[in-house]
Amino acid sequence: MSPFTIPTESSYIEAKGIRFAYRKFGQETGIPLVFFIHFRGTMENWDPNMIGALAESRPIILFDNTGVGETSEKTPSTIAEMAKDGATFIKALDLKQVDVLGFSIGGMVVQELALQDPDLVRCIIIAGSAPEAGVNPDPVIFERMKRHGGNVNDALDDFMFFFYRSTETSKAAGMESLQRILNQKQFESSDQVQAAQLKALAKWAQPNTDHNYDWLQNIPHPVLVTNGIEDVMVPTKNSYILAEHLPNAQLIIYPDSGHGHLFQYPELFAQHVNLFLDSK
Amino acid sequence: MSPFTIPTESSYIEAKGIRFAYRKFGQETGIPLVFFIHFRGTMENWDPNMIGALAESRPIILFDNTGVGETSEKTPSTIAEMAKDGATFIKALDLKQVDVLGFSIGGMVVQELALQDPDLVRCIIIAGSAPEAGVNPDPVIFERMKRHGGNVNDALDDFMFFFYRSTETSKAAGMESLQRILNQKQFESSDQVQAAQLKALAKWAQPNTDHNYDWLQNIPHPVLVTNGIEDVMVPTKNSYILAEHLPNAQLIIYPDSGHGHLFQYPELFAQHVNLFLDSK
Repeated sequence: MSPFTIPTESSYIEAKGIRFAYRKFGQETGIPLVFFIHFRGTMENWDPNMIGALAESRPIILFDNTGVGETSEKTPSTIAEMAKDGATFIKALDLKQVDVLGFSIGGMVVQELALQDPDLVRCIIIAGSAPEAGVNPDPVIFERMKRHGGNVNDALDDFMFFFYRSTETSKAAGMESLQRILNQKQFESSDQVQAAQLKALAKWAQPNTDHNYDWLQNIPHPVLVTNGIEDVMVPTKNSYILAEHLPNAQLIIYPDSGHGHLFQYPELFAQHVNLFLDSK
Repeated sequence: MSPFTIPTESSYIEAKGIRFAYRKFGQETGIPLVFFIHFRGTMENWDPNMIGALAESRPIILFDNTGVGETSEKTPSTIAEMAKDGATFIKALDLKQVDVLGFSIGGMVVQELALQDPDLVRCIIIAGSAPEAGVNPDPVIFERMKRHGGNVNDALDDFMFFFYRSTETSKAAGMESLQRILNQKQFESSDQVQAAQLKALAKWAQPNTDHNYDWLQNIPHPVLVTNGIEDVMVPTKNSYILAEHLPNAQLIIYPDSGHGHLFQYPELFAQHVNLFLDSK
């Protein structure tokens, strides 16, 4: 595949007092696939090779949720509010039904979106994420997430540690992906985004007394759950739990990879997503 | 996809005193994919739609291992001997390297084959199977396997119970697949095959004292591990163990399905296998 360049110019749409920045491209017809990015990320943080392979077969919508990147207002501090804002954005574009792909915190937001607004969503991809009250990482990891965003070298070390395994192959593929991402225009997330998202993550991670994950039965949509075999930040076990408790979930786990599996294998991941969506 | 018919005429090749029956078809060039069938199965027990979707992109070799179906001699009573005979067959065809797909007991045989003869194997697909000393099913299941093969109705009930979930969707897809399989010429497996394979399965299933699955590190090949989300016969947990301990394994788990996942989703499964093999 030839390298893909994500369009750099944003469009804007206002709804409920929020001015949402977004970029729509790819195929003109078909059900759009709307992307929900990871902790502190903006729409510039997707690997363009992964996005490009998906844009060949469907309309793609990247956006910044409330308070993030180019979108106005303050980032809310619960996953539920983030999902509500996501639905507001999708409806503002006059879309009746979309496919959604959420990575990390984005994968939590799309679960909430499907629960709140089931008819707005056709198919769901949950990458490197967890159910509410899932299995938490070592507390050291959460501390490292809190201080994430120091100087440039620390930020790079953190990113590589959180997203890739310590094998040479995983690190090399991760660095290549990071280079592709950094070649794009970058918006910095504010401290407010980081604080609000950390608060939302902490609440989402709180253990539930029964641990039966009953509420996942209320997401009857076709779901594709993915992760790397060893995700240190959002433990891979959470993907098994999602696949076991969601009524209609396919699970794909990638070798020699972690949280950043979808960027480590951008074309293969995109082909799996295309197969999943096209078989529905 | 239009329905596919597996060629009905077998070829034969003799090696080490065994007359192996096989069928080779599909693409003329490329690395052949050699299939290892489930408990009591012969080469007529593959879903033709799954095989057809794979035959479009590579050479396919189905065969009966020693003592099974049309192949001569007695079925050995260990997985290791079955793997040795499999290698004998592959080498008799003058093939230097093949891809292998093993389903259920066949998935155990291909693990042993890779350990015994690593250079003979390029990529491995392990469907509905388990590592040695894996997680065993409820003892009731093993008892039911022992008596499997009573009258026609019992055999049908057993097959549906072992291979599919009790949901209407899984049962309906399973019956459709079974009909496709039964439309093919059928060879019955002898009581000797059943007894020898049960003995091999029981030995393979014996718990190991350390349970660290270290030996799986000696299978560095690219592996695709698959199962349904709820396999009552070879618990799905075994697929997680394989993916976690094999150094280079991709894992795909299918929704609303069990042991027979590859027959329940014949085209999707074949597309996943093609993607896996073509990305190597």
